[in-house]
Amino acid sequence: MKKIFEIKDKSIIYEILDQAEYGTLALSFADVPYAVPLNFVRVDESIYFHGALMNKKMKILAQNLKVSFSVVENHSLIDSDFSSTEGLACPATQFFKSVSMDGIIELVESREEKVLMFESLMKKLQPKGGYRSFDDEAYEKVLKATAVYKLVPSMVSCKFKFGQNLSEERFQMIVESLEKRGSEIDRETIKIMKAERGVNDGI
Amino acid sequence: MKKIFEIKDKSIIYEILDQAEYGTLALSFADVPYAVPLNFVRVDESIYFHGALMNKKMKILAQNLKVSFSVVENHSLIDSDFSSTEGLACPATQFFKSVSMDGIIELVESREEKVLMFESLMKKLQPKGGYRSFDDEAYEKVLKATAVYKLVPSMVSCKFKFGQNLSEERFQMIVESLEKRGSEIDRETIKIMKAERGVNDGI
Repeated sequence: MKKIFEIKDKSIIYEILDQAEYGTLALSFADVPYAVPLNFVRVDESIYFHGALMNKKMKILAQNLKVSFSVVENHSLIDSDFSSTEGLACPATQFFKSVSMDGIIELVESREEKVLMFESLMKKLQPKGGYRSFDDEAYEKVLKATAVYKLVPSMVSCKFKFGQNLSEERFQMIVESLEKRGSEIDRETIKIMKAERGVNDGI
Repeated sequence: MKKIFEIKDKSIIYEILDQAEYGTLALSFADVPYAVPLNFVRVDESIYFHGALMNKKMKILAQNLKVSFSVVENHSLIDSDFSSTEGLACPATQFFKSVSMDGIIELVESREEKVLMFESLMKKLQPKGGYRSFDDEAYEKVLKATAVYKLVPSMVSCKFKFGQNLSEERFQMIVESLEKRGSEIDRETIKIMKAERGVNDGI
């Protein structure tokens, strides 16, 4: 039985990416992997990053532009006794949304594309504004001193785990247990559970 | 000027690992990286994972046991205008704690060590208890059907970014802006900022 549902709708995938504050980029050289967490911004289908011109990431990318990128939106921990009547630990799990991407990094050289990245990143993480436009000459030096690179994905995968496949009885037991625990995350999780159940029931 | 502070205290590193619900594991085969988010538990210096006996992770690990692992504890987004008097976007950042590990994966075969992992993971993610002890025969089948593997780290690095190196003036501007915005994360971030500033001032 499938326990995790694959999501194909691009607008849902974009929403997860646009709400996430960071993702984790996996790089590799000589089959030694390197995991590094980064703030990022999505522009159309690409993911943009920025950082120092010379660090471990940039040294690895100079050798190998293949990367994998992972973004997680974590939801409620589901205690085993939420849905287990036999007292086993096995039903313990966590509900989540995740996006996974494989692809190639392109280094961004043009001023225009660097500015596009910074404008997009600021809109994402500081939507209230309150800073000078990137046309300003004051930014010239920092634009030159900052590496900007984008992930052009060859594969994008999105998964939702919200108990979509559970029996009606176990699904309701979990909903009731989450209602009882009642944290903000739990209340949000219940909403998604019901919405996803609806989607899968309806088709 | 150092903007991110390296933390050497093991108890601080363990605290981050023990509070994190997931981390991201980077694997690689033929220099194609693969980033995968996982629940995990720390036992002494090792990190334990579990999962299906046969999936993409296990296939890659059969070829290459070298991995990198990243855990992030995200704190407040710091808006550029919290500390910029010139209206530039550049001071925009995010405060965080992070742990990064490189090492080798060992597959766990013994029943005893598998049980140790499940007991530790349940204690971490479901501290209230409420499930049968893993001595119970009811677990035999699932113990055999679950892959357990541990990361034995050769390198552990921990970083804190909480404005430790800022001028007193900019530090105070950020504290005041966070107080004004006043979310739960902001209040927690202020506490850590002050504690870390104290540590670095005092030595």
